[in-house]
Amino acid sequence: MKLLEDKILECGELREGGILKVDSFLNHQIDISLMQEIGKELASLFAGKGINKILTIEASGIGIACIAAQYFDNAPVVFAKKTESLNLSGDVYSTDIHSYTKNKDYTARIDKKYLTKGDKVLIIDDFLANGEAAMGLMRLVSMAGAETAGVGICIEKAFQKGGDMIRSKGTELHSLAIVDVKDDGTISFLQK
Amino acid sequence: MKLLEDKILECGELREGGILKVDSFLNHQIDISLMQEIGKELASLFAGKGINKILTIEASGIGIACIAAQYFDNAPVVFAKKTESLNLSGDVYSTDIHSYTKNKDYTARIDKKYLTKGDKVLIIDDFLANGEAAMGLMRLVSMAGAETAGVGICIEKAFQKGGDMIRSKGTELHSLAIVDVKDDGTISFLQK
Repeated sequence: MKLLEDKILECGELREGGILKVDSFLNHQIDISLMQEIGKELASLFAGKGINKILTIEASGIGIACIAAQYFDNAPVVFAKKTESLNLSGDVYSTDIHSYTKNKDYTARIDKKYLTKGDKVLIIDDFLANGEAAMGLMRLVSMAGAETAGVGICIEKAFQKGGDMIRSKGTELHSLAIVDVKDDGTISFLQK
Repeated sequence: MKLLEDKILECGELREGGILKVDSFLNHQIDISLMQEIGKELASLFAGKGINKILTIEASGIGIACIAAQYFDNAPVVFAKKTESLNLSGDVYSTDIHSYTKNKDYTARIDKKYLTKGDKVLIIDDFLANGEAAMGLMRLVSMAGAETAGVGICIEKAFQKGGDMIRSKGTELHSLAIVDVKDDGTISFLQK
């Protein structure tokens, strides 16, 4: 998606260790007009899949998922919770996920009421790197007897394994920008 | 806002200790059509205030803020982060906030780049109870030399002190549903 690639080139900041900071428009400050275009693009890519629910994980995926849901006939958004809240009942699907960004494990939980057999779920997230979060969400969908109709990602890191891992499972994955970083620190984009 | 009050009566669940569970439409599963109506209502209530930025805090406020921002000329949304991320630089405004729901303190942080002098900020959140989060966000706005143009809340708990505390400071606060719970466990709504 050229608009997103251009935005990454214009506003993204590359840090040591291949960390791409895009918090001026994606995951700290959010550019709403850009999210609308991302939502339209995802709706076009996953058209005809019968998607009736959008699934993401707190926190950065929520805004993108909510804006995008508008282009899927206002499908409800469910976000998996990362911490044990006093308000979340015990009747949940849960799975452990490793965060490389925060360098720790956490448990992702979804109340069983909000993910059910027959749901055709589109998983949306801001980043795909090692694929831990997306794979964790796919496990939660499976536990519910629901179907992962696809995975829609804003930025995939080509130099990390998550994207190819998900593709190799036969899951339909669309990453709107697949970022590669050369040794000299320049950013380029791949198509997969 | 009658639509929200009706939804609370229809789908809300009251738990011990005055905990109102609304996670079927507000803070776990999100009803996008309802969020759009909430966004329109907030835009109407805060019209003419020159609001150019929406501020919230992860995680439950993000979806509401993003949908609502569309009715404020796609103003950018900034969400304060609760956890120290490797991706957040050190140059932040930060303040400590107590969470009664989770019974612990956390530090809320905003990168200084995304909140600046001259910003007219609308703070949006899902719940207002003791007001800790909203007051914390107002402190962050002050630190930046920006102005809190108003606070927009989906559900205020009348039996907790946050709403009156913010009103007593002269800040324009609109809560779309002000919930009171009687001793017999029935829910009623107040106007303030």
